[in-house]
Amino acid sequence: MPDAPRSLYVIPADPAATPYLRLIYAAWSDGELTDDEIRSVQTHIASAKGLSDAARTDLQSWLQPNRPPSIESLQTLLKPMSGDLASVTEPRPTVEPPVSTASASFSVAALQEVTAGKRAATRRRVFEILSGPGFERHWERSKEAHREQVLEQLKVLAADGIGSLSYPEEYGGSDDMGRFAVAFETTAFYDISLTIKFGVQFGLFGGTIHALGTKRHHDRYLRQAGTVELTGCFAMTELGHGSNVADIETTATYDPASGEFEIDTPSDSAQKNYIGNAAVHGRLAVVFAQLVVGGEVQGVHALLVPIRDEAGATMPGVRIEDCGQKLGLNGVDNGRIWFDHVRVPRENLFNRYADVSPEGEYVSPIESPSKRFFTTIGALVAGRVSVALGALSAMKSGLAIAVRYGDRRRQFGASGAPETRLLDYRTHQRKLLPRLASAYALDFALKHLVDRFVNRNEEEQREIETLAAGLKAYATWANIESLQVCREACGGQGYLSENRFDDLKADTDIFCTFEGDNTVLMQLVVKSLLSDYRRQFEDARPFTLLKYVAARAADAVREPHPLAARNTDADHLRDAEFHLDAFRYREQRLLGSLARRLKHRLDQGMDSFYALVDVQDHVLAAANAHAERIVMEQFVAGVAGCVDPAVQTALGKLSALFALSRIEVDRGWFLEAGYVSTAKSHAIREQVNVLCAEIRPDAVGLADGFGIPDRLLGAPIAMP
Amino acid sequence: MPDAPRSLYVIPADPAATPYLRLIYAAWSDGELTDDEIRSVQTHIASAKGLSDAARTDLQSWLQPNRPPSIESLQTLLKPMSGDLASVTEPRPTVEPPVSTASASFSVAALQEVTAGKRAATRRRVFEILSGPGFERHWERSKEAHREQVLEQLKVLAADGIGSLSYPEEYGGSDDMGRFAVAFETTAFYDISLTIKFGVQFGLFGGTIHALGTKRHHDRYLRQAGTVELTGCFAMTELGHGSNVADIETTATYDPASGEFEIDTPSDSAQKNYIGNAAVHGRLAVVFAQLVVGGEVQGVHALLVPIRDEAGATMPGVRIEDCGQKLGLNGVDNGRIWFDHVRVPRENLFNRYADVSPEGEYVSPIESPSKRFFTTIGALVAGRVSVALGALSAMKSGLAIAVRYGDRRRQFGASGAPETRLLDYRTHQRKLLPRLASAYALDFALKHLVDRFVNRNEEEQREIETLAAGLKAYATWANIESLQVCREACGGQGYLSENRFDDLKADTDIFCTFEGDNTVLMQLVVKSLLSDYRRQFEDARPFTLLKYVAARAADAVREPHPLAARNTDADHLRDAEFHLDAFRYREQRLLGSLARRLKHRLDQGMDSFYALVDVQDHVLAAANAHAERIVMEQFVAGVAGCVDPAVQTALGKLSALFALSRIEVDRGWFLEAGYVSTAKSHAIREQVNVLCAEIRPDAVGLADGFGIPDRLLGAPIAMP
Repeated sequence: MPDAPRSLYVIPADPAATPYLRLIYAAWSDGELTDDEIRSVQTHIASAKGLSDAARTDLQSWLQPNRPPSIESLQTLLKPMSGDLASVTEPRPTVEPPVSTASASFSVAALQEVTAGKRAATRRRVFEILSGPGFERHWERSKEAHREQVLEQLKVLAADGIGSLSYPEEYGGSDDMGRFAVAFETTAFYDISLTIKFGVQFGLFGGTIHALGTKRHHDRYLRQAGTVELTGCFAMTELGHGSNVADIETTATYDPASGEFEIDTPSDSAQKNYIGNAAVHGRLAVVFAQLVVGGEVQGVHALLVPIRDEAGATMPGVRIEDCGQKLGLNGVDNGRIWFDHVRVPRENLFNRYADVSPEGEYVSPIESPSKRFFTTIGALVAGRVSVALGALSAMKSGLAIAVRYGDRRRQFGASGAPETRLLDYRTHQRKLLPRLASAYALDFALKHLVDRFVNRNEEEQREIETLAAGLKAYATWANIESLQVCREACGGQGYLSENRFDDLKADTDIFCTFEGDNTVLMQLVVKSLLSDYRRQFEDARPFTLLKYVAARAADAVREPHPLAARNTDADHLRDAEFHLDAFRYREQRLLGSLARRLKHRLDQGMDSFYALVDVQDHVLAAANAHAERIVMEQFVAGVAGCVDPAVQTALGKLSALFALSRIEVDRGWFLEAGYVSTAKSHAIREQVNVLCAEIRPDAVGLADGFGIPDRLLGAPIAMP
Repeated sequence: MPDAPRSLYVIPADPAATPYLRLIYAAWSDGELTDDEIRSVQTHIASAKGLSDAARTDLQSWLQPNRPPSIESLQTLLKPMSGDLASVTEPRPTVEPPVSTASASFSVAALQEVTAGKRAATRRRVFEILSGPGFERHWERSKEAHREQVLEQLKVLAADGIGSLSYPEEYGGSDDMGRFAVAFETTAFYDISLTIKFGVQFGLFGGTIHALGTKRHHDRYLRQAGTVELTGCFAMTELGHGSNVADIETTATYDPASGEFEIDTPSDSAQKNYIGNAAVHGRLAVVFAQLVVGGEVQGVHALLVPIRDEAGATMPGVRIEDCGQKLGLNGVDNGRIWFDHVRVPRENLFNRYADVSPEGEYVSPIESPSKRFFTTIGALVAGRVSVALGALSAMKSGLAIAVRYGDRRRQFGASGAPETRLLDYRTHQRKLLPRLASAYALDFALKHLVDRFVNRNEEEQREIETLAAGLKAYATWANIESLQVCREACGGQGYLSENRFDDLKADTDIFCTFEGDNTVLMQLVVKSLLSDYRRQFEDARPFTLLKYVAARAADAVREPHPLAARNTDADHLRDAEFHLDAFRYREQRLLGSLARRLKHRLDQGMDSFYALVDVQDHVLAAANAHAERIVMEQFVAGVAGCVDPAVQTALGKLSALFALSRIEVDRGWFLEAGYVSTAKSHAIREQVNVLCAEIRPDAVGLADGFGIPDRLLGAPIAMP
């Protein structure tokens, strides 16, 4: 059958015709069309808007059922499209990607100053050490070799005074908890096993000697803890009791005859479990036990128990097992410890907040047993601050790698054009950029936490504990989620150990468990918020709850403003005032309704424990809303405080992206509450897309803004 | 100051007073109350409902600002509460947990029959082999040792005929793809490195010889592939092109003078990357390359290239590097391959769908180059089915471990009572039970997929490819998310390698990347759905999209029924008809609006590639809705098909939990669409809680229903 005459007179001049030209080409080039298919295209073209009549006639000439165009004839169709429909079998040119697509809209150095913060010198010094000899990267090694490397590296840091930064000057320290926190978070850019060993030795072990001990303990142990001459453990967790520390079973029984305490593991569930430094290196342990004096149980107290002698042999009565291979952190030697009636001198009891006289009289300046308990386990608060910081370092590393890779890696693309960079895909932007925004939000929030923690007075203690618990849970979950997305965004490359997601993910996975299980911490946060009775500690006593209700039940939560709920203006959607109001409103309303629901249950005579379990999903939502409100506030405050206008503008967009992307995630709640209308919810989704596109050219600059040295970032796929 | 008189006359008889008694005890026992605090409690008690006047008087007697009760006096308060406020310092009794709290409401054996499916004998045989000698579990080993173990284990399976199950009988097989799939998924209960090596050797390597080769290839290689006498690779992916296979750069150029093909790696980005079996074991590779005949590029074709001789030495012109340590799957020897003008005989080209004559004439029975391309890479479809199955096996293992542990592990609790089992906490139920429901949903959906795949005819090919792509992405993401939650739910125990989350998480992390990146696959799904033009393959040609629009744009998506949107009856919420309607409605509406948005962009002259990028978030939402609708339908159909009434009832509840928990996750969408009212959204959340509580006593039975032998489950925390 002869080829039918075709016309392309008008088409090259009518851009509206191009898609239909493609349509026809694509349809025929894959084989013959059925009559139905041709009719469908004909109908479509007949009703297409914006097409000139001449173009329409031209196009219809290609749709004659009995006269399919020949291959040669089809080729002519390609001409007006200037080669934009290359055959699938022709490989596209491979373009060598530049390191970065565009210079950022701001000075990356100026942004790096913001992230370095006011303790930049400490950070720089730790970076120098981590870039020096003895800190090479290894991907394959036995846990035994890894543990020894980490110990050696710990000693290098200690030799520089980094380990004792938080201790008093008389013990070789700088009395500076803030710098200690910065050192901790900075090590997490190298190897998180080192970070955790650092935390165990200098923070949990040395820090507890400092916090709970008195001069006799400080004089004897503190300097050596800071230099790693004396290696130690923090033996709190037991197999049977992890979260519920108050119910640990190990006992420390005072014997006035000998003036000694006898430490004992009464059952197998009482074994000290998961104790860092225990399997190999630790010589002295801070042991938490139920103190028994004169037959009375006085609750959990801490005392020092030698577990190995100087030669490394286990002490008599002490049994230690290695926890073995773990999902991550295999450079930390976790172990299990059993005590069989081990005796230590009376002076080994930390006696800052409680003491036992030689005769066996128990005394404490703190009357409330619950307050005494929470003071005793107070070291966990510093631990929570540290863990949040370490999680953020890992999150930043993952994002820096994924953003750099996404900026250069190309795959697929428009016909005839070079393949498209991954970060130019909307889905890829939506994977990485909101999380980049979260990392900056957390950077401001955790700097705020460190400052509050370092400068705390006794009155603020409780509030800061709540802050630390909430931000620890929020940051560690954000990190786990972000690393997963970043790994996936790097495809198969992200799965090679050398590209670092292996260790980053594995090592930080436990961050949502240790130093307080996140789900438990989030409940503590809410219990604390439901109380303004500051002397009360973390328990669920109904008094706390009811007082809150008594004070607030009458304050009806304000109804959302109907006009604001429908406002879809871009200016409004990007306005920090809107963001702050949204996060505050959600927190207030979730807490208010939670209090009412709890009160209802208690009024009906439900046990307070079961009442809380019954609304536990609500509790977690409220805790998350609380933590996220604080993060949002700190991001807005941080942006407001920027001195560099270009940095301020860039971070301001990120702050809006953080706000809107988090509202989008929880839009179910905001819609239910009537806080946003359906139209506004749609507009928020659209604005997230717009912000992603606007931020995209700055993405590499923002990732570089974290200031992670290339040598530490390490991943070959992220190297210039 | 003398203790004031206190009365407790009425209280023991008035249960409504108990919470207030607790309140007063807790308030005073922590120290003195301020006047304000006392007033607040007084006001509260004065206005409390349900309290008798006498009880109110009793209670007020304890709230005299100037007369705090003495410690002794406070003790008397405890009596009416029968010891339910034990001091925080008294350890609670440790209760040895039984294996299971209660027998399930159904026969676990009957449920196990359902999950074993109709190919139970194969599953049983593979379980037997995996429980035999040579299949011990190891937590610490070098990747070198692990690789050798896996190869030996592969040979044990092959010796039993497991490797060649899908091959024709004349080559030692059983011609049974379904049994092959079951064998694959069953190995994933032991070591997923073995599973992947199994897939590479028997599926990708042997399967491609079977699918693309002809008798000459089958005769020479197929039997040996099935016995592992001949080890092979599937060399498709290149460093520069993973997802975009059509643009790989390796060339196979025909030389008529010698009758040979010359295989060449023209650039470094053309290196074959991540090739399983390449680093150590593979001798022969199925290589995908651009076929060049007479100077013309004919697109991607596959041919056999020897890469090592029988002694294991690399062949001339071939360079191989080890990919090194990976995040997981270190028992698989992935490598990179470069070819330097390597020559192979013309007969090494797989010639089922295309051939080159000795003289250099290219012939193919498939006219469309794009159809030829998708036939050539068709092995990936079987791969996707398999990967989805493997992901579900991992998900089941993780859930079985976490559910058993959550059933016995106790932490915290009501005062004076034994500590509470984790699975009795609402948050814990909400972590594990909806995911348990998802695993059962996927079990039915993937059995359906396997059956469709095994029994496919050519007409259904396209539909089944779409089904496999959607379910692969859905199942692998569900597994990653579920394993993370299960690991966290097991706390520190979940972090020990012996408890299996280490390998389970690490090995399956790449499942969302290989055999098609999930994000890419989900886009293929939608592109395919937007077309009913079956001969068209996976590309974004506008024709496909516009035809859909032409056919459907006029069908306005029905508006949600206003009465149904407000129906909060439990019967309605649990009704499978409601569930099916919700999932179908969402899919239909998302696809309809997507088509309209795409049409709008194309009408404005936007390039089809960029038009898709511009609505990419919508595309992913539609793809997810599609996959989830299929999963929901198969779960409902599976429950309807249950012959055991008790099993049917239990799975029916799980099906409702799956439906409602997924709707809850996406309630933002359902609210925006007007498909559910705010009240209904609340009712759904509540019903999820109710279902979790109802299912909880069956949880261990449901986890055991997966039928994983204890020896394979392995985790000490999950052992009886």
